[in-house]
Formats: sequence, structure tokens, C-alpha cells
Amino acid sequence: MTAPTFADVQRAAAVLTGVANLTPVQTSRRLDETSKAAVFVKCENFQRVGAFKFRGAYNAVTNRHASKPVVALSSGNHAQGIALACRILRKRAHLVMPEPVNPVKRAAVQEYGGIVHVPADPREAESCARDLVQELRGEWIEAFNDPHVIAGQGTAALELLGQVENLDVLLAPIGGGGLVSGTCLAAHGLNPGIQVYACEPAGALDALYSVQDNRIVPQENPQTIAEGLRTSVGTLTLPVLRNHLAGFFVVEEREIVTAMRFIYERMKLVIEPAAAVAVAPLLRPEPALQHKRVGVIISGGNADVTRYFDELSSEMT
Amino acid sequence: MTAPTFADVQRAAAVLTGVANLTPVQTSRRLDETSKAAVFVKCENFQRVGAFKFRGAYNAVTNRHASKPVVALSSGNHAQGIALACRILRKRAHLVMPEPVNPVKRAAVQEYGGIVHVPADPREAESCARDLVQELRGEWIEAFNDPHVIAGQGTAALELLGQVENLDVLLAPIGGGGLVSGTCLAAHGLNPGIQVYACEPAGALDALYSVQDNRIVPQENPQTIAEGLRTSVGTLTLPVLRNHLAGFFVVEEREIVTAMRFIYERMKLVIEPAAAVAVAPLLRPEPALQHKRVGVIISGGNADVTRYFDELSSEMT
Repeated sequence: MTAPTFADVQRAAAVLTGVANLTPVQTSRRLDETSKAAVFVKCENFQRVGAFKFRGAYNAVTNRHASKPVVALSSGNHAQGIALACRILRKRAHLVMPEPVNPVKRAAVQEYGGIVHVPADPREAESCARDLVQELRGEWIEAFNDPHVIAGQGTAALELLGQVENLDVLLAPIGGGGLVSGTCLAAHGLNPGIQVYACEPAGALDALYSVQDNRIVPQENPQTIAEGLRTSVGTLTLPVLRNHLAGFFVVEEREIVTAMRFIYERMKLVIEPAAAVAVAPLLRPEPALQHKRVGVIISGGNADVTRYFDELSSEMT
Repeated sequence: MTAPTFADVQRAAAVLTGVANLTPVQTSRRLDETSKAAVFVKCENFQRVGAFKFRGAYNAVTNRHASKPVVALSSGNHAQGIALACRILRKRAHLVMPEPVNPVKRAAVQEYGGIVHVPADPREAESCARDLVQELRGEWIEAFNDPHVIAGQGTAALELLGQVENLDVLLAPIGGGGLVSGTCLAAHGLNPGIQVYACEPAGALDALYSVQDNRIVPQENPQTIAEGLRTSVGTLTLPVLRNHLAGFFVVEEREIVTAMRFIYERMKLVIEPAAAVAVAPLLRPEPALQHKRVGVIISGGNADVTRYFDELSSEMT
């Protein structure tokens, strides 16, 4: 696999035109006051499948053999992205979803026609995916360590930089680094002066250590409500992060909930905890962000609101 | 007081330009599939103060004596709308907020510089407001039975009809009828063929009966989670409703929660229960709406999400 480039991000943007949603950018007087910055929120919660992951999944699927089935390993947004991409492109998608599987996400994958495999033991998920690839002569699309996935994720930032002029800083949450490395390629392809920061939960701090040590420091026993950010970085994302990142913001769990609530109450947007990780540094306030024009990539809106509505229902009776 | 006209709505739109947010219209493949209609959601949850009420409040305040303080009686979105309008227009606002007062809404009113009065007995709220008007030589702005308020609320539909072509039907929730009667004036000023439906909770069915009987049937002991819709219609709104409405959709409590959850999960929008009342008929499906181009006015996003975030926080520890 070769590292993706800015040209790959531009190609991905062309592939996604008319397929992915051109998501809006929203602003909030209150967020600007609190952060002492001019903040532009890129609403990937309004993306298809409710998350930026559709971009990378669709771009990667278009770059594989038209006749081979796709295999992916994910219990989250990547699984939904691959399933929908394959439905649009009339391909078969096999999704290995290790427990715990959110029933809403499983149902969404199946609605898109994806074939779901839940291994009895979550530790067998990788071998299960590998066996499927062999059996079906399929192609595995990794959630972030894939050049087409990274290029696809970069299109969110490319789009944002076309929607808003003169951004100084971009913030995005980091898990495996697909979104952040794509964001780096897009931003610095347009303007090497833009500072890209990765925002990482204190309870899942592998990316920061991996960049510092220049080796993949595996994520062990992560403790964060930001599900999507519990993974380790990959061989393709790490070098991009090292070459491009201005730095990291480390975010406490309490800050994640506060930021999520701020966005619900003040901006009326449903976002998932991972998305709030990139908002949290703005509420501190953070000297590196003050008086800057800051773009924030909201990763998605797939929060589990089941209990909120169960409570509302119980009030009625 | 004279009844407002389409020209008043147009004048209000001019007054609100650059002050109110030009709120976006959003769509959802899933909502279209479920309703078998083409649905356009007017996002007044993104309006200032989080609800359409800012429109009517601001328009009314601009039409009063510049030097007289404003008095309003509301524990909800009207109070916030008046407080913010007065801050912008450098006027003093006195808000009589009968219990139960949501502490978040009270704090918001005070942040805007509004002076809050909480009568010891909620039944004294009206006399409290009347006394304030006398004492302060102030002017009372009613929440819906005011021609400038109605004209202001109508600007949401006027804007929507400029954003989306050829709508057949408009849906809006009904409490006192300010939003619905403004919507009627705006729609029929542009095109008398547009059908406007009022959506009312089954547990607060006074507007339907008032229109049927052509007299104000008072709302007694309403039972609905849609707080904003618990009021009776007024002398100004009733004749507009009688002359213009195509009909009513009566919505059960269970349907309100289902519709609210649909909008959170599928469209990633935070909406309040009253807003969900206008979405609910689309999920039935409803023959009168199928194969139509339907505009839905989302009244606001001021839902109380406190317990959801309290639960999230408790998971962390």
C-alpha cells in the first residue's frame, strides 16, 4: 500500500460528488463567545449513515474490483459506510461486527443489505474476517489503514475549506487516524500554513504516544465514552500524522460530556461523543485557539439516545 | 387590535432581515420513504433563542414605543424571545414566569438582561403582569394574540416558501395559534392553493374544538409533553384559523415521542416535543400527505436534555 497524497483527496472528492451529502457548516454566537474564536462547525453528523465514515468507505469500494465482495471489520460507523457504499455500487458487503453490537447499528447495516457476521468470541473477529476474505475471494477494506479510505475522509476538510475562507486551525477527533490524516493532506495541499490538531481522549491516549515515539503504541484497555476513538493508529496514518500535525489536545471524559451537551443545547445538533472530543478544547478556553478562525470536523451523530426516549415515554404513562 | 394581513407578514420579514437567522431547510431520504412524500423541514430549532418565537417577539417589540418597558407572561420560548429582542433594541424587558420554571430557560432570559418575576402562586401570574404594566407604564406583549407577533411568526413560512418551490402542504404545531395563523397568512398571500394543517396533541385538543364551534373553547387540564401547546387559542388567531385551515391532524403522545426520536436518530436534529407534533402525521402514513410536497415547520429545539447527560456522566464514574 502506498501513502495517499493531496491528489488522492481531490480524486476522492470527484468520486463523492453527488453521492455524499455536501454537509453544511454551522456557527454559534455562544460558541464564538465562549472560545474567543470564530468557529465553523462542519456537520458530518448530516452525512449519509450519520458520519464522515461514508466518505472513505465509498471511495475505497469504488477503487476495488467491481465483481469481488467486500469484507470489513467494524461494529460502528465504518460498517454502515461500507454497507451503504456497496448497496449504491451493487456489490455484496460482509460485515464482521464483534460484540458489543449496538442493535440500531446492526439493523442499519442490514437495511442497507449488508451481511452481518457476529463472531462468538470478539477476539476471533480478525480471523473471522480473514477467513471470509479467503472463502469468498473478497477484499478487505480496513477502517482507516487504507489509502483510499484516508483520501475519502480528507474530503470533509477539503469541502470545509471551500465553504469557509481563511481558516487558521482545523480540529478533528483521532482514533485510528483516518480522519485526521486525510484532514492533514487536504489542508496542507491547499495551504501549508493551516494548523491541524488531533483531539484525543485522555482515556485512550495512544495516538499522542505513537507520534512522540514514532512507532505504533498499541491502544490497550481504553477508557472513554467516545467509542470510535478506542483504536490504535496504523502504518499508513502514523507517518502522515508525524509530518503534518501541529499538535494534540488531550480531552478528559468530563469535558467530552460538557462539550456534547453544549452542542445539543446551544446548537441543537445531535452529535456522538467522538465528535464532542474535537469541540472540547474550544470550551476551556485554549490560548492556541483564541482569536483564530477554527474549523471543527464533527465526526458524526450516531449517539445512542435510547435511554433518553425511554425516559420520555415512561413520563407519559 | 386589528387582524394582521399578508402585508404585515411581508413587513415583518423586512424588519427581521439580518436580525433573525435565515434558518436552513433540511431533507431526509428516510423521512421521504416513510411518509411517501417529499418533505422539507424548516429548522427553526436553529433560530435565535432556539425557536420561531424570536421572530414574533422581535417584530412586536420594534412596533412599540421605544421608551416604554415591555412586559410578557411566559415560562417558555416567548420569554426568551422578548428578552433577546429587548436586549438587541436596548429596551427593558420584564418577564413574568409562572412555576414550573425550567432553570435553563430562566437563566437564558437573565443572560439576555431580562428581569424575571416568579409569582408565588401561578394563578396570580396574569394579575402580576397587569400590575407591572401599570406600575412601570409598560406595554404587554402577548405570546400569540398580538398582530405583530402573528405577522412575525408568519415569516418562517414565508422564508420556507422562498427556499422550496411548489409546496402543496404546510404542517405546523398549534398551541395558541400564533405560528399557524401566521403560516396561513404567509402561505395564502403567496398561493391560496397551499393547504395548511394544524397539528395538535390529542391531550390538548382545544384548537380543533374552537374552530369547529367558532368560539374559544378554553384549554383545561391539558395532558401532553408538548409544553408549548398547552394554551388556548385567542380572539385574533381563531378567525384566521377558521378562514384558512385545511384541517387538523390529531397526534397521540406516543406518536410525539416516536416522531421526536425519528428526527434525533435519522436527521440528527435536536427538537422539542411541540416540534415533533408536526412531524408525527408523516410517519403514519397519512393519505392526505402522500405524494405531496410537504413543508414542516419545526417550532424549536428547546428540549430538556438534562437527564440524558446526567446519565452519560454517571456512566463515566
